[in-house]
Amino acid sequence: MKGWQFVETNEPLELVEKEDPKVVAGKVVIDTKVAGLCHSDVGVLRDPGWKELLGELPVIMGHEVAGVISEVGEGVTDYKVGDKVAVCPTGPSKMAPGYAYDGGFGTKVLAPAEDLVRIPEGVSFAQAAAGTDAGMTSYHATFTKGGVKAGMTVGMIGIGGLGQIALEAAVAKGATVYAVDLNPNARELAKDLGAAGVYENVKEIAQFEPEVIIDFAGFDVTTREALESIGFQGKVVLVGMGKLETTLNVTSIITKQATLVGSNGGTKKDIEEIYELFASGKVSPKITELTFDEIPKGIQMLEDNKVTGRLVANMEK
Amino acid sequence: MKGWQFVETNEPLELVEKEDPKVVAGKVVIDTKVAGLCHSDVGVLRDPGWKELLGELPVIMGHEVAGVISEVGEGVTDYKVGDKVAVCPTGPSKMAPGYAYDGGFGTKVLAPAEDLVRIPEGVSFAQAAAGTDAGMTSYHATFTKGGVKAGMTVGMIGIGGLGQIALEAAVAKGATVYAVDLNPNARELAKDLGAAGVYENVKEIAQFEPEVIIDFAGFDVTTREALESIGFQGKVVLVGMGKLETTLNVTSIITKQATLVGSNGGTKKDIEEIYELFASGKVSPKITELTFDEIPKGIQMLEDNKVTGRLVANMEK
Repeated sequence: MKGWQFVETNEPLELVEKEDPKVVAGKVVIDTKVAGLCHSDVGVLRDPGWKELLGELPVIMGHEVAGVISEVGEGVTDYKVGDKVAVCPTGPSKMAPGYAYDGGFGTKVLAPAEDLVRIPEGVSFAQAAAGTDAGMTSYHATFTKGGVKAGMTVGMIGIGGLGQIALEAAVAKGATVYAVDLNPNARELAKDLGAAGVYENVKEIAQFEPEVIIDFAGFDVTTREALESIGFQGKVVLVGMGKLETTLNVTSIITKQATLVGSNGGTKKDIEEIYELFASGKVSPKITELTFDEIPKGIQMLEDNKVTGRLVANMEK
Repeated sequence: MKGWQFVETNEPLELVEKEDPKVVAGKVVIDTKVAGLCHSDVGVLRDPGWKELLGELPVIMGHEVAGVISEVGEGVTDYKVGDKVAVCPTGPSKMAPGYAYDGGFGTKVLAPAEDLVRIPEGVSFAQAAAGTDAGMTSYHATFTKGGVKAGMTVGMIGIGGLGQIALEAAVAKGATVYAVDLNPNARELAKDLGAAGVYENVKEIAQFEPEVIIDFAGFDVTTREALESIGFQGKVVLVGMGKLETTLNVTSIITKQATLVGSNGGTKKDIEEIYELFASGKVSPKITELTFDEIPKGIQMLEDNKVTGRLVANMEK
């Protein structure tokens, strides 16, 4: 097998050929079809603080893995060779591919069976890979933490990679969504995705008394104004870490009995549910596809903020 | 009847004799036995911002009312003359005694039947009055919003009037409570009330990974450190408005998936449940009793921060 491995902070990804992994009890070998690239990969490569999150080095990166099972270890009864699966990076094993063990930037991945999610009919490997992180995280924030349901009035701040999926999914489920983004292109996109209204400033959605606001930006002012714009007993879900601190209006939180909740990652169930929405055709994340060889270039594109939607590598091209 | 009425901001309470209220449909007349005095009464009298919360002026103040029904209006079937009742100041009518209509600093109160709570055997009128606001608010924050249950690990910040009741109630229900207060006397009291440990700084309770922390102080640093000290997926309930703004650590909220929720007031059910705890003898709020004539002096004592526990006026003395 081959793969792109992390060697050291601020060193380039290294292309390696190594022996195929041997299957062990409780695990499966996945032939990677598509691996997702993520902004957090830039963090891993550039910021020494991320290094401690990695296991034994060097490690093949890539935490968004979708492929086909080629070997099944002892004790694994739920899966068989040929099954199409993805790996939940925040699954029950508490180990993420590309961090704790060789991940999706390699052509084969040895993954714990307990972290697998089946890829249903109608979901491409590219969608499946994007669904494991961006899809899971936006679904978890919007539905699992935010409790968004049909008929609800919802605000969404930051219509980037996560916000796009969340917006389309919330509209698909019958919520009325007001979108906020400073970027006019993002506001245009939000309209196309079904937003009931698009705004430049968070305070403009206060008139709708939203029951839930999902803050995918986390730029301090966005969180503060979300809590000031939310309806009585409303909830703000904080996902984005645009700033390290946020200064909030205490009187408003108390008199509105508002809730602020942080959301991070998600579960296998979130991935299964976003896959259902992908399969229904109601949610179609915007995906840009690269080849295996282009993975380092893709990371550079992310670092340069040149990517809209999600970036994936087709491992067979 | 007689009563102490609000005339104008920064003018003294005025003693008035007026005609007894006439009962009307859906309401009852209560002969006030005990009226609670509250720090918020100082706000009403001193801060012009509070004036807009009052109804038609002048109005007899006092939002913590406990007494005996002396007249029952048409259509009121759940209550009869002689019943011991208190009034929920944030009840279904959305009108508070002492704000929207003549309140407990008067010897008779005409109150909507829908806002009444029965005073059970074993609860004194003084406890009942204190239970309508301090009791309800601390119960609501701790149990209704905070979800505190037997076996849980809980932090409580600020062992003042509300914190004392909350601490005793949480211990009575089987929670393990770590108390935080800058004041050594408050820490001593917290130990007496059953705290498993008492600390000067919020960060010292992080070692116990509390599931819930109730912040009765709201002094910015208390809320920030509460969110930094809470366990994974823990909840901080913000009750105190010690400062108007609080600056929070975003990374900590997101990676811990922490929740911050504002709590304010409560419901009739909260009052009923705190009365049960009073009746059981497991929670005994510290109460200082004045006479009717001493009500203005009592407000001054609150303004001068000379009161520990709750202050009430026995209207028959």
